[in-house]
Amino acid sequence: MATTIKDVARNANVSISTVSRVINDSKPVSEEIKRKVVEVIDELGYVPNPVARSLVMKKSRLIGIIVPDIANYYTGELLNAFEEIAKTYDYEVILCNSYGNTQQEFRYLKLLESKQVEGIVFLSFKMMQEHQDFFERRKLPVVLVNRVSPADNILSVSIDHRKAVYEMTCKLLEQGHKDILLIRNGEDEILFGTEHMEGYQAALAEYGISFREDRVQNGYYMVQNAYKIMKKIIESGSVPTAVLATSDDMAVGAINGLVDNGYKVPEDVSVVGFYDTELATLYRPKLTTVQHPIYDIGAIAIRMLIKQIDGQEIEERHVRLPHGIIFRDSSRALK
Amino acid sequence: MATTIKDVARNANVSISTVSRVINDSKPVSEEIKRKVVEVIDELGYVPNPVARSLVMKKSRLIGIIVPDIANYYTGELLNAFEEIAKTYDYEVILCNSYGNTQQEFRYLKLLESKQVEGIVFLSFKMMQEHQDFFERRKLPVVLVNRVSPADNILSVSIDHRKAVYEMTCKLLEQGHKDILLIRNGEDEILFGTEHMEGYQAALAEYGISFREDRVQNGYYMVQNAYKIMKKIIESGSVPTAVLATSDDMAVGAINGLVDNGYKVPEDVSVVGFYDTELATLYRPKLTTVQHPIYDIGAIAIRMLIKQIDGQEIEERHVRLPHGIIFRDSSRALK
Repeated sequence: MATTIKDVARNANVSISTVSRVINDSKPVSEEIKRKVVEVIDELGYVPNPVARSLVMKKSRLIGIIVPDIANYYTGELLNAFEEIAKTYDYEVILCNSYGNTQQEFRYLKLLESKQVEGIVFLSFKMMQEHQDFFERRKLPVVLVNRVSPADNILSVSIDHRKAVYEMTCKLLEQGHKDILLIRNGEDEILFGTEHMEGYQAALAEYGISFREDRVQNGYYMVQNAYKIMKKIIESGSVPTAVLATSDDMAVGAINGLVDNGYKVPEDVSVVGFYDTELATLYRPKLTTVQHPIYDIGAIAIRMLIKQIDGQEIEERHVRLPHGIIFRDSSRALK
Repeated sequence: MATTIKDVARNANVSISTVSRVINDSKPVSEEIKRKVVEVIDELGYVPNPVARSLVMKKSRLIGIIVPDIANYYTGELLNAFEEIAKTYDYEVILCNSYGNTQQEFRYLKLLESKQVEGIVFLSFKMMQEHQDFFERRKLPVVLVNRVSPADNILSVSIDHRKAVYEMTCKLLEQGHKDILLIRNGEDEILFGTEHMEGYQAALAEYGISFREDRVQNGYYMVQNAYKIMKKIIESGSVPTAVLATSDDMAVGAINGLVDNGYKVPEDVSVVGFYDTELATLYRPKLTTVQHPIYDIGAIAIRMLIKQIDGQEIEERHVRLPHGIIFRDSSRALK
């Protein structure tokens, strides 16, 4: 037989309504009685009936996080921030891994909603009309991280991707690299594919280098894709002097593609990454990369979400945090 | 105003109980009416009231997963299996990242229980009496993955860790390595620290090599710890010819510690890992490692959990799957 609120009340020698007050923190109860009730709850292993409880409490203090891929350093570092900051505001966090599958995303969105989450941090490979409709129709607060929605009213936090690619390309050009391969994620605007292209082209233009279409490839965030891209380019016989990949994972894939085919990094080819995840310093050579303030991005996303939940005004709907550029061992200046 | 079940019934031109049947799949409804109701539900953006719904349905078909660290390849590959197999059985999965913090684990255990999960896959760095008490008292089905509980009644899935370390140590000894450093996780029995030590010692004994206590170090799963351990050993002037780390992460930490201090791997020192995660082939040199059937471990864990949920008999309470040994570029035979 499951322990009931009655058992707790009897054992603590208080009324049922007192137990309910303690559980739901709804009305003041003396510290002494509170302690006694909590003691009995622990002793009996009493679990408040969630159904009865939801009838009393309006707030779940729960945030749902949907990510497309949990097994990478970037997501891991973000989650760290999500959870720490959420806890500061007395929110708990639950995670769902969608594998970037839209059907699965909607299954999770509905599941999270039925579990009464108060808001969602949403990381997806796509941001389709049906996503936007969902959030709008359900009036569910949402924040995007490291992506941006075509619908301006959906909040987002990221760095300025256009500027980051522009600056990194300029650095490589300054160092004497005239033939630079860009491995970006894809063409999607939500993942800044357009901004990556714009930043890259602006830098080339500034240095008077003509743009070659075959020097922009899409890696779709996959190590293996970057590996294959490099292999193909080596086979074509026209190897660039530098590679700029828009993720550290893809930079590692590119380096492996070069090294496994007899090229040395950075002696023969410089390769730079994006994000400055743990992988950037775990791998050898350590990666030159664009440093994202990953923790701050995660922290601000949670703050924006909670503001939205609380109905507070949001001054900046699309926060763009400053990035940095870190030189390590995977790139070098040409003589 | 939120859409209610009444609105759906009115718009679909059916009774409320018909809508309820469709939502809860509780009694047969004709395909045509079902389609109509689902259409209206989508059109109006109706969300079934979870409170009312839980009163009707006993089962949440929800599994909770608690892990100590989400940002590594091993966890990522396991989750893949958890989610795929759970879906086969029509279960959804939600994740909680505890950072191995016992307090946080209990917060999540209580949260998941209040969200009516039917069972939990539990990955922790510790398995304390209070964990065991919790699961027992709440009658909450649980399966441990890649760890084992001192309480025999708690199910677990893993490989035979003692045998795996024994065999890998034997391979290194066969290849002429007489001075082998073991970097295991720690001394905890739940994470097989004792089994690692036993396997290592048994192999040494078989080859007539005497055991040195300073050749067993604890890395607690941290790349940085393995790095520091190697640095210290190099400073001591007594560098082993081979290192066996009980995770690929720690093997990479050890290699970085060696390479950054002027040693070559595998030319000067062989380093082998454990798990055969994605990192093992992402890193250069590719790691020689103990291959765990990670997907199968995850799949069997979910099957065992669902059997337990359904009250079916479990023949094997502690499943130990076969492992393999994969030779790659981070180790070599001594002449």
